[in-house]
Amino acid sequence: MNIEHEKYMRIALHQAQNAFEKGEVPIGCVIVSNPTQRIIAKSYNQVETLQDPTAHAEIIAITSACAYIGAKYLNDCTLYVTLEPCLMCSGAIFWAQIPHLVFGAYDTKYGLTHQTQGLLSKRVEIIGGILEKECKSLIQTFFKQKRS
Amino acid sequence: MNIEHEKYMRIALHQAQNAFEKGEVPIGCVIVSNPTQRIIAKSYNQVETLQDPTAHAEIIAITSACAYIGAKYLNDCTLYVTLEPCLMCSGAIFWAQIPHLVFGAYDTKYGLTHQTQGLLSKRVEIIGGILEKECKSLIQTFFKQKRS
Repeated sequence: MNIEHEKYMRIALHQAQNAFEKGEVPIGCVIVSNPTQRIIAKSYNQVETLQDPTAHAEIIAITSACAYIGAKYLNDCTLYVTLEPCLMCSGAIFWAQIPHLVFGAYDTKYGLTHQTQGLLSKRVEIIGGILEKECKSLIQTFFKQKRS
Repeated sequence: MNIEHEKYMRIALHQAQNAFEKGEVPIGCVIVSNPTQRIIAKSYNQVETLQDPTAHAEIIAITSACAYIGAKYLNDCTLYVTLEPCLMCSGAIFWAQIPHLVFGAYDTKYGLTHQTQGLLSKRVEIIGGILEKECKSLIQTFFKQKRS
């Protein structure tokens, strides 16, 4: 199971790399349909490109996955994202009824576990820290470059 | 000031009426630019129409307002919405740096004040209960019709 998580997280990390190359905070996301084990959405953060504060990787992936399956619930999917989701994205995961969330790096400032006090955990199985080092390192490199 | 709030909430309520007529949970939203007092975005909930769980009135309005002004922050705007925002929309309001939030009906189940324990209130002035009766009544009528 952990090997599967790393496999999909690595694809999310590739998406984050795309974001990095476009000058976006490097966060990537994939949504996997559990019955088929197929990826039904891939996305990366596009806040700067679209000048849209709602264009986080997870929001784009959820909209895209729902368009793909033609339904508003993703209740047999797993969402992989390289950074612990924020309040907005946690809410979107909640509304989409996504039962499994796997994230890479922890976000101690805006991450859901600190903000929502376990709201999601009532109905979402959450696993953090998959490829944590790589996910975190990409974000740190981005901000280091930005400052210099 | 209260008369202004009622004026804009009534326009949000018209948007909610649009949602109602399309079989959507009737929630409407407007964003007003404070310096000009002009409405820069109007929207209503489109979750069913788009089959997209992120298509809440506020998310659509924020994306639309940012597209209109060509910037990712709405830091001189007021957002009016007929129902107390959920977790996802509260997060979007936070990221958009909207300083003033005015809502109509209270949402004791999914409303932000109950979920986020004052996260928004650190940087957003929040006023609830404007045209509360009308906003609430429209939603109640919707669910009553749906059940029968």
